[in-house]
Amino acid sequence: MSLTPVLARIDADLENSTKRLLELLRIRSISTDPAYKDDCNAAADWLVKDLISIGADARKCPTPGHPMVIGHIDGPGPHVLFYGHYDVQPVDPLNLWDRDPFDPAVETTAKGKVIRGRGSSDDKGQLMTFLEACRAWKTEHGTLPCKITFFFEGEEESGSPSLVPFMLDNRNELMSDVVLICDTGLFQSKTPAIVTMLRGLVGEEIILTGPDKDLHSGMYGGPSSNPIRVLTRILAGLHDDDGRITVPHFYDGVPEISDELAEQWRGLNFDHGTFLGDVGLSNPAGETGRTPLEMIWSRPTCEINGIHGGYTGEGFKTVLPSRASAKVSFRLVGDQDPAEIRKNFRAYVTSMLPPDVSVEFKEHGGSKASQMSTDAPEFEAARSALSDEWPDAAAFVGCGGSIPIAGHFQRITGVSPMLIGFAKDDDAIHSPNEKYDLESFHKGMRSWARILDALSQGS
Amino acid sequence: MSLTPVLARIDADLENSTKRLLELLRIRSISTDPAYKDDCNAAADWLVKDLISIGADARKCPTPGHPMVIGHIDGPGPHVLFYGHYDVQPVDPLNLWDRDPFDPAVETTAKGKVIRGRGSSDDKGQLMTFLEACRAWKTEHGTLPCKITFFFEGEEESGSPSLVPFMLDNRNELMSDVVLICDTGLFQSKTPAIVTMLRGLVGEEIILTGPDKDLHSGMYGGPSSNPIRVLTRILAGLHDDDGRITVPHFYDGVPEISDELAEQWRGLNFDHGTFLGDVGLSNPAGETGRTPLEMIWSRPTCEINGIHGGYTGEGFKTVLPSRASAKVSFRLVGDQDPAEIRKNFRAYVTSMLPPDVSVEFKEHGGSKASQMSTDAPEFEAARSALSDEWPDAAAFVGCGGSIPIAGHFQRITGVSPMLIGFAKDDDAIHSPNEKYDLESFHKGMRSWARILDALSQGS
Repeated sequence: MSLTPVLARIDADLENSTKRLLELLRIRSISTDPAYKDDCNAAADWLVKDLISIGADARKCPTPGHPMVIGHIDGPGPHVLFYGHYDVQPVDPLNLWDRDPFDPAVETTAKGKVIRGRGSSDDKGQLMTFLEACRAWKTEHGTLPCKITFFFEGEEESGSPSLVPFMLDNRNELMSDVVLICDTGLFQSKTPAIVTMLRGLVGEEIILTGPDKDLHSGMYGGPSSNPIRVLTRILAGLHDDDGRITVPHFYDGVPEISDELAEQWRGLNFDHGTFLGDVGLSNPAGETGRTPLEMIWSRPTCEINGIHGGYTGEGFKTVLPSRASAKVSFRLVGDQDPAEIRKNFRAYVTSMLPPDVSVEFKEHGGSKASQMSTDAPEFEAARSALSDEWPDAAAFVGCGGSIPIAGHFQRITGVSPMLIGFAKDDDAIHSPNEKYDLESFHKGMRSWARILDALSQGS
Repeated sequence: MSLTPVLARIDADLENSTKRLLELLRIRSISTDPAYKDDCNAAADWLVKDLISIGADARKCPTPGHPMVIGHIDGPGPHVLFYGHYDVQPVDPLNLWDRDPFDPAVETTAKGKVIRGRGSSDDKGQLMTFLEACRAWKTEHGTLPCKITFFFEGEEESGSPSLVPFMLDNRNELMSDVVLICDTGLFQSKTPAIVTMLRGLVGEEIILTGPDKDLHSGMYGGPSSNPIRVLTRILAGLHDDDGRITVPHFYDGVPEISDELAEQWRGLNFDHGTFLGDVGLSNPAGETGRTPLEMIWSRPTCEINGIHGGYTGEGFKTVLPSRASAKVSFRLVGDQDPAEIRKNFRAYVTSMLPPDVSVEFKEHGGSKASQMSTDAPEFEAARSALSDEWPDAAAFVGCGGSIPIAGHFQRITGVSPMLIGFAKDDDAIHSPNEKYDLESFHKGMRSWARILDALSQGS
């Protein structure tokens, strides 16, 4: 089966492919907010229907949370499993969006055409690059070059509570020779990349309670403890003056990268100035003596992702609040143990509480960092296929984000997944005005068509 | 004119007086939120109508913000001005209210009957005690024992931006022999009190901006500054380990109280345990080596009244936010200068900013502390009248809250006002489930009837 007509079909059908993506983007599948449960279900239904339209045997699989979608298409080559997620991040602050996040459109910008809307890049647009590549193969040749299993999740943005139990229960159906995951980006907007290192994640929420009701700060200010003040003291103490995290034993299991990898990364000529400049910054924060690339790919972090307490509306209110809360996350590397870090963080917080202030902890997911073994021949096949499609040769890179699914496949099916994606740093994923370049979408589809071809040659 | 039938009239009309108060409480006059502008206007209209109903020459006076209400009733005795405010605090968190804050009612509790609703105690209920006392005098004798000016404000809970300009523009109309302000409480729920010391207030909002958009904490966590983290460091640094405020020169102008006053306060036998226990606390926080009463009445404070940044909804979002903000207030005593403190606070905040993080400040009111001169004979007359109504003799006390109007009268009309009120510590003013004891309302009306009588005797 020739690749050439498949690539031509992708080019010819770009408009229709885009229309299908816009349909999917209109579904408000915010997984973290229970108010959008029906929308998550609708997105799963849409995917089942679309998989069936390209000849897959597809179904929606219930879980205690949002449903999974599984589909199979038979084919001659090796068995390839593809993973993506159909859920999206919340859209607040809504007033910073230039359009309704769920009324997506193709917009023409100074840098070219973009698909604008929540999920356009993370991850609906990326997921659809693969589905559309399969559609083109099927349209041109009536079949696919490999046997394919599609596996779509709806809880990736909310800690994937159902994922591991589901994978364990359905292990046989999810076994494959190769695993592809499309939830990452290009390297510096032009070089295709295969991610071989991923950071882990621990998410924690802490809720402090002082007085048993909100008080008037004139009547009680002074003698009453203020949970916001206690919270700021706890959070401010999480880093020392060198930007290192103070939680006891936090750096246990954090390795220094090898000289060989350090050399490879230097060869990428990462543009630190542009990386920071793109988001309005000019000075690297973080650990003293580490470069931004090193910090993102190979160093652990602690971030405060949200904080709330007291009166935060218009004007002023001299309240002394009963409660204050924060959401804190840690990015992990190497062998750092999420359970140990959660335990030590909680002990630190508890040790900082004055009398009369109590704490409640809420767990929001935890996963170890992942390191892929790149010895398998499909890594080299995919690197070569990507290099054929893009102007620059593909690179093996690290990723600061946490994609726990990679580690789950390693542990549950024994396959080191290939993380390949076409997002750009300026896609504003998780932010207002998220977009996906039309070029990412187009060349993404072409990349997958080539990778499937390369994988089928190798078998 | 005899006082006896006036007190009897108040007793007989309690139900009707309460009905009128409930009507006023139904008006959503939240002054700090522009969404309630029409409601503030409606509350002013209601008061004008009610003042006219007792024979006052009353009108609504426009300001750049919410209107003032002024009314006059002639009479034989000294000229008495009465001040109260018709605006109320916001009602969030709404889910902690046991009833709609603007659907007030008389409820029967274990401790007796209470009027429940926003503003019942602060300050609509208190304001109406005086108006109803005047109504009773008028009903029984066809006239009042003193010449009265009513002066009601609608911006007390939002920093009173229009107050001083209005008082300066209308100085002649606001001149009087005696000023009465009803916005304070009983001492420890049973002893009537005249407040002679009030703390001042500085309100500030700080808004920090780091990256120019919300970022994914996986992609940027580490090298990007996080404005929440910077904010917690700034706020945590505002107090030292002894609970003292670190803003440079903050304690300039803070006096130690005289031995005589300290002795008086000791004589009040303030129950520190109950004071804290009533709000679920058991350990005094605040400055090392100071008693709670001392901290509330005679020591300055710094409180964080609100904080917000990043994702604070349900679930978790690994966002690295562009902005974070906090509302901070200082209570002032003695000769502390609000302008100097604001300036030094801003300099401190600015000095704590790392590169790439900028700050915007918003001013939310400022006023000096007030000290009344209690030599005027009306202070002793009022103390005696209050002592006749209540089981315990009335006391001269301090107040931790900030009632800038007191200082404005001192400066603009030269009269040291008498701050007399009937609120209780457990009224939950500024909090969910605000209430005013029916006894406070009833004995409050009777107290004013007695005070007007006493003032007319002295003239």
